[in-house]
Amino acid sequence: MVVATEKSNGRSIPASNISPNTIIELEKGDPVVFEKYWRKRGEECSIVIRGWEMMSYVGDEKNNVCWYMLPEVERSIRRLHHVVGNAVTHDRYIVVGTGATQLFQASVFALSPSHPSKPINVLAAAPFYSEYQDEISILRSGLYQWGGDAASYQKNEPYIEVITSPNNPDGIIRGPVVKSEAKGKLIHDLAYYWPHYTPITHQADHDLMLFTFSKCTGHAGSRFGWALVKDIEVAKKMTRYVQLSSIGVSKETQTRVVKIIGVVCDGYQNFGSMESELFFEYSKRLLRERWQKLWAVIDESKVFSVAKYSKAVCNFTNESSEPSPGFIWLKCEEGIEDCESYLLEKLKVRARGGKRFGVDSKYARISMIGTDDDFNEFLKRVSNAKKE
Amino acid sequence: MVVATEKSNGRSIPASNISPNTIIELEKGDPVVFEKYWRKRGEECSIVIRGWEMMSYVGDEKNNVCWYMLPEVERSIRRLHHVVGNAVTHDRYIVVGTGATQLFQASVFALSPSHPSKPINVLAAAPFYSEYQDEISILRSGLYQWGGDAASYQKNEPYIEVITSPNNPDGIIRGPVVKSEAKGKLIHDLAYYWPHYTPITHQADHDLMLFTFSKCTGHAGSRFGWALVKDIEVAKKMTRYVQLSSIGVSKETQTRVVKIIGVVCDGYQNFGSMESELFFEYSKRLLRERWQKLWAVIDESKVFSVAKYSKAVCNFTNESSEPSPGFIWLKCEEGIEDCESYLLEKLKVRARGGKRFGVDSKYARISMIGTDDDFNEFLKRVSNAKKE
Repeated sequence: MVVATEKSNGRSIPASNISPNTIIELEKGDPVVFEKYWRKRGEECSIVIRGWEMMSYVGDEKNNVCWYMLPEVERSIRRLHHVVGNAVTHDRYIVVGTGATQLFQASVFALSPSHPSKPINVLAAAPFYSEYQDEISILRSGLYQWGGDAASYQKNEPYIEVITSPNNPDGIIRGPVVKSEAKGKLIHDLAYYWPHYTPITHQADHDLMLFTFSKCTGHAGSRFGWALVKDIEVAKKMTRYVQLSSIGVSKETQTRVVKIIGVVCDGYQNFGSMESELFFEYSKRLLRERWQKLWAVIDESKVFSVAKYSKAVCNFTNESSEPSPGFIWLKCEEGIEDCESYLLEKLKVRARGGKRFGVDSKYARISMIGTDDDFNEFLKRVSNAKKE
Repeated sequence: MVVATEKSNGRSIPASNISPNTIIELEKGDPVVFEKYWRKRGEECSIVIRGWEMMSYVGDEKNNVCWYMLPEVERSIRRLHHVVGNAVTHDRYIVVGTGATQLFQASVFALSPSHPSKPINVLAAAPFYSEYQDEISILRSGLYQWGGDAASYQKNEPYIEVITSPNNPDGIIRGPVVKSEAKGKLIHDLAYYWPHYTPITHQADHDLMLFTFSKCTGHAGSRFGWALVKDIEVAKKMTRYVQLSSIGVSKETQTRVVKIIGVVCDGYQNFGSMESELFFEYSKRLLRERWQKLWAVIDESKVFSVAKYSKAVCNFTNESSEPSPGFIWLKCEEGIEDCESYLLEKLKVRARGGKRFGVDSKYARISMIGTDDDFNEFLKRVSNAKKE
C-alpha cells in the first residue's frame, strides 16, 4: 500500500497510509512480510481438504514415536533440511508440535528428571526470548523452574540450557555459555537459522533442535513446529507431552506444511526456476532491503543505535553477507532510560522492552517482518525522532 | 468394506475383512464412523486455503479476549448451539483451543488460585475420563493436583470438580457430586452432549462448558475445541494459557471448522433438506444401529454385560429415545477379574481397562465410533466368546 515517497532528511523513505497518531504494532514478530511472496506464487500453493479427509487422531500408525504425524510431513521436513543444509536429519527422530512453543515445553519436560528432589533449572543467556520464562513458570512445575541468565549461572546442579541461534531478540549466533561443572542438557532453538535471516555457515548437529514453520516460510497462523531429536527416549517423551497437551497437531496444518515446503523445495530442485522467484532468495532480498533502509536512518540517529553484524559466507547462497534478522534490537542513547516507553509515547510505536528479555530497559525489540506500511512508517518516525 | 453376512448364533452379523488373529484397536475413541456421512456430502464440504492466506498469529484484533480466533469461528459456534439447543451462548465468551484437551488444562489453570499455599484439588466422579489424571499430574504443578474420585472427597478445602456429561466412559448424564462445605468451582465437559449420542433434554447453562469438534462432527484430526465461559476474567486467563502453550489455534483448522459447522447448520436451516441427510439424524441412526446389534449380542452373552440406559425426550429431534453413547462400558462377569486382559488375550480386542477410569478392572471401555469392519468383527468375537 505504498502510495508515494517523500523526502525526509535528504533520504527517500516510502510514504505509508498510516496517520501520525496511529500506534504501530511492532511488538509481536508476526511474519506477514512473506505474504507477498506467497501471493506471487498464486494458486500452486493452495491446499484443498475434503470433508471426510483426515478425521482420525492418528497420522501414521507405523510411526512408533510421533504417531500423530503424517508420513509426508516427515519426508517434507527431511527434504527441506537437505535442500537448505542447515541441520543434520540423519539418525534423528522428528517430533512435530503446535508451534515451536509447544515443542519447547515438550523438550523441557522430556529433558527434566522424572522424579526430581527439586526442580531442574532452565537457563538462557540474556538477552533471551521473552516468552521462555513465562512458558516455564506458568504452572509452577515441580519438574523444572526458570533459572534466569545462563551466563551468570553458578550453581553446581544439573540444568537445561536453551541456546537460541540466531538469537531472538538480537540476531547473534550463539553457543552454550554455562560454565558449571554440573551436568547440563541443551535445547537448540534454531527458529531463525534459515538463509533469509542469516548466513548458513554449517549444518547444525545437536541433540535436540527446534524449528518453526512460522519463521521459516512465514506461516505463523498455522501453528506448526518440529524437533530433530537424537535420543529416541527423549523423542518419545516429547510426543507424550504433545499427546497430553493437545492429542497431536492439526492435520489441516500438516497438509499445508507439506504443500508449502514442497513448493519451496521444488523451486530449488527443479531445473529452470528463476533465482528471483526462489523463496529464500526473494525473502532475503526483502529483509536486506529493509535493513539497508534501517541502517541509513539509524546511522544518522542521535536517539537510537543498533549493533553491527559481521559478514559470513553462506553455504546455501554461496555469497558472503551480513545477517538480516527478524528483529531490530534497538538501544536508546544517553538520557533515555526506558526505550519501550519512549517509543510508545514519543513515536507511537509499540515495541517489547529489554526487561522482558532479561536486560536493561534501554533496549527494545522491534519486528522487522511486519507489513511494508508499518515498517515504512516506523522508519519515518525514527528518522524524525533525531530532530527532537 | 462389508462384503457378506454370516450366521452366528442364529443372528445375522455382517462379516468383516479382518482375520481372526488380527488385534482390533478399540482402545481410542477415534470417531471415524462419521467419515461416511462426510463422504456422502461430497465436495460441498471442501475447504481451499491459498498460500498467502491466514499467515498471521492474529485471528481478530478486535476480540479483546480470544485474539487468535477468527470472527467467523465465533459466529459458527454460536449458530451451532442455537440450532441444536444444547447450550446457552448468550452472555458467554468463547475461547477456542487445540482440542478440548488443551482447553481442559486451560480451564483448570484459569480456575486455580494464582498464589496458592498448596495446590487445589481437581476431582471427577469415578468412572472418570482416563486422561484427566495424567493431564493434571504430568508437570507436577504447584497450582493444582489430581484429587481423585469426587464422590469420596471429604476435605474441607477449595476444589475444582469436572463434570463430564454424558460421561466418558459410561454415557451417564451427570451433575456435581462433591458434598464438601468448601468452595468448589465446576468445569462441565460436554464433549458428548450432542443429539447423536444422547437426548438433548435441556439447554446446558453452566459457568464453564467445554465442547470438541472431534466428538461433535467426528473431525478428531483437526484438534479443535471450544469453551463457553461466563466470567471474562476466566476467559482471559484461559486465553493466556493457550497463548503460552501454543500461541493460539491453527487457522487452517479454524477454516475447516467454519465450513463443516456451516454445512451442518445449513442442513437444518435451509428449507427442503431431507431428514435422512441431516448430520445428527444420520449419525444417530448409525450409532443406534450399532447399539441395537450390540444389545442383541450382549443380551445373550454370559461373559459380558452393559448397563441399560433409560429413554428421554430429545428437544432437538422431538422423539423419545435411549442414548447411543460413543463408548461401550463393558463389564466382565464372574470369574474374569481383568476385562482388558481378557479382551486382549481371548478376543484380541484392545480396550481400555477400568483402572484407568478409577474403577475396578472388571470394566473396560470400547469405542463405538470406529470403522464398520472393526465394529462387526468385534461383535462376532463377543458373540463367539459366550460359547467358551
